Amino acid sequence: MAERVEGERLGEFEIIARYFAPLATDAAALGLRDDAAVLVISEGYELIATCDTLIEGVHFLGNDPPDSIGYKALSVNLSDLAAKGARGHAYLLSLALPRETPPAWFEGFSSGLRELQEATGITLVGGDTTASPGPPTITITALGLVAHGHAVLRHGAKTGDRLYVSGTIGDAYLGLRLLKDPALASAWDLSEEDSAFLIGRYRRPKPRTELVIPVRNFAQAAIDVSDGLVGDVEKLARASHAGALIEAGSVPFSAPAQKALQREPRLLATLLTAGDDYEIVAAVPEASAAAFEAEAQAKGVPVTMIGRIGGPSGDARVLAPDGKPLELGRKGFAHF
Amino acid sequence: MAERVEGERLGEFEIIARYFAPLATDAAALGLRDDAAVLVISEGYELIATCDTLIEGVHFLGNDPPDSIGYKALSVNLSDLAAKGARGHAYLLSLALPRETPPAWFEGFSSGLRELQEATGITLVGGDTTASPGPPTITITALGLVAHGHAVLRHGAKTGDRLYVSGTIGDAYLGLRLLKDPALASAWDLSEEDSAFLIGRYRRPKPRTELVIPVRNFAQAAIDVSDGLVGDVEKLARASHAGALIEAGSVPFSAPAQKALQREPRLLATLLTAGDDYEIVAAVPEASAAAFEAEAQAKGVPVTMIGRIGGPSGDARVLAPDGKPLELGRKGFAHF
Repeated sequence: MAERVEGERLGEFEIIARYFAPLATDAAALGLRDDAAVLVISEGYELIATCDTLIEGVHFLGNDPPDSIGYKALSVNLSDLAAKGARGHAYLLSLALPRETPPAWFEGFSSGLRELQEATGITLVGGDTTASPGPPTITITALGLVAHGHAVLRHGAKTGDRLYVSGTIGDAYLGLRLLKDPALASAWDLSEEDSAFLIGRYRRPKPRTELVIPVRNFAQAAIDVSDGLVGDVEKLARASHAGALIEAGSVPFSAPAQKALQREPRLLATLLTAGDDYEIVAAVPEASAAAFEAEAQAKGVPVTMIGRIGGPSGDARVLAPDGKPLELGRKGFAHF
Repeated sequence: MAERVEGERLGEFEIIARYFAPLATDAAALGLRDDAAVLVISEGYELIATCDTLIEGVHFLGNDPPDSIGYKALSVNLSDLAAKGARGHAYLLSLALPRETPPAWFEGFSSGLRELQEATGITLVGGDTTASPGPPTITITALGLVAHGHAVLRHGAKTGDRLYVSGTIGDAYLGLRLLKDPALASAWDLSEEDSAFLIGRYRRPKPRTELVIPVRNFAQAAIDVSDGLVGDVEKLARASHAGALIEAGSVPFSAPAQKALQREPRLLATLLTAGDDYEIVAAVPEASAAAFEAEAQAKGVPVTMIGRIGGPSGDARVLAPDGKPLELGRKGFAHF
């Protein structure tokens, strides 16, 4: 058995007992002492299941603080659930980590998970911990709940629907660029606070869980923006057998992103397609638009109309601020 | 968008559409065209959730046939569910693979999944596909169903319960040794069929899904043997606040394993602790033993009594065939 502590290294069972069992606050988790969870789904609810993997060097950087890695790993799954109008119920965590991962990493990582659990009510119910020769790889499968028949999907948008997006777009991309090349801060005329904001948006994307109810009440279709705004709008349009038109001049950018755009206007196409935003795009019928906006505002989440559903099926077109089609090198991110 | 086909490489969406969408036969999967699944859990059922990660070089070998990798990735999860008395309902698949993974790999891998789906009724409902700089890493989260209150857990075994194990123990370990050092076949006096059998047990462990009903009907506690028979029995005993006694002379070994044991008797302790068996250990009260055996036999699964629950709490002791305590270097496998 490897339960002994060797210097700064902990055994598998010690890691689970010390860092993860405290996150397993629901009886369903059986204290993580079993190898499965037993979940009771309340009558009248559907289960929404989603799964995202984060890999060091692909989805986060090796020197990102461990707490931000834990936060992000759970956040991107809660973002998927929020786009479905579902609240987080439980999650399973698979960790494939180098054998020499120190206790401080687990301490930080689990604190990032805890922060988001406490903010949203989701709890850890199971998982797997494996020593791997590869880069740290984290897979979370999140299970959400929504009243039967009320899940919001990618399909369902109708021609004429307004397209809304929450928050601001492109911050995470700029944050990642800054982490890789800090000199860009002066090129983009950013203050320290500006840079910290953009980096925070890359490392710790806040899931838009406050939009669960407005999305469920008023959106006909929704998607979270993980792979790029234009590409993800196109996925929603294609699933709805419709097209979409985005007005780039209406897309919301944060004040720091606006500074970068002023210094480097050609960043516009990149910000619209870069991804990692974890904002929600919702297709809302004209008749519900005012109610959707009011409910989102009441929840404290800014939402902005950026275009409409319509046009050639399966295609998301983008108009530049001058009204002409915007040239895009690509519409979003795809692995492989 | 990366949907184009580049030579022998496929885009992410093409991979999903060609190889995985055909496995998503349930409406809950939304044809894998959404980023989440919508599952309706029938009234009166509980959901069992479990998660296992397989990494090349850790859980399978780089030259294992891709279909066996797919088969094993799903099998180890179905094994966990079977030990809970739960039948497989749906699963999510996360693939982190090198960018240059060829279509033939996906073809083989998905055929291994399909084989087990068709044998057991579980279906793919979602997942994530990511290009990774690390070794192929596969995480499956499986969701099973069991009638409310009927899940069999690790805890619940009582002093005096019989300990049963399905099938035979140690085959997969011997198969792995043969793959790494083919010369062992002659050292262990194995025929080609013997070697193929043992290698097959490593590469394609058959989940004991036929035991779902006997386990649910008669076991007070159960666990699947993934990390070593003795260690996993000890986990069951510890969770049950009990001890366990295993008689090594009663542990079932296949004919090829018996040949290896005859040539190399000191393998005994290794086979009892090596893991990767994916057999089921069940604690069955004396009064239910005959019924359990009969029902398992009727399902075509051999089960063998290997000992009893009892003795010092949290400890699994092993008696050698001569009745003396068997020396074990370790009781099971642990990461970290």
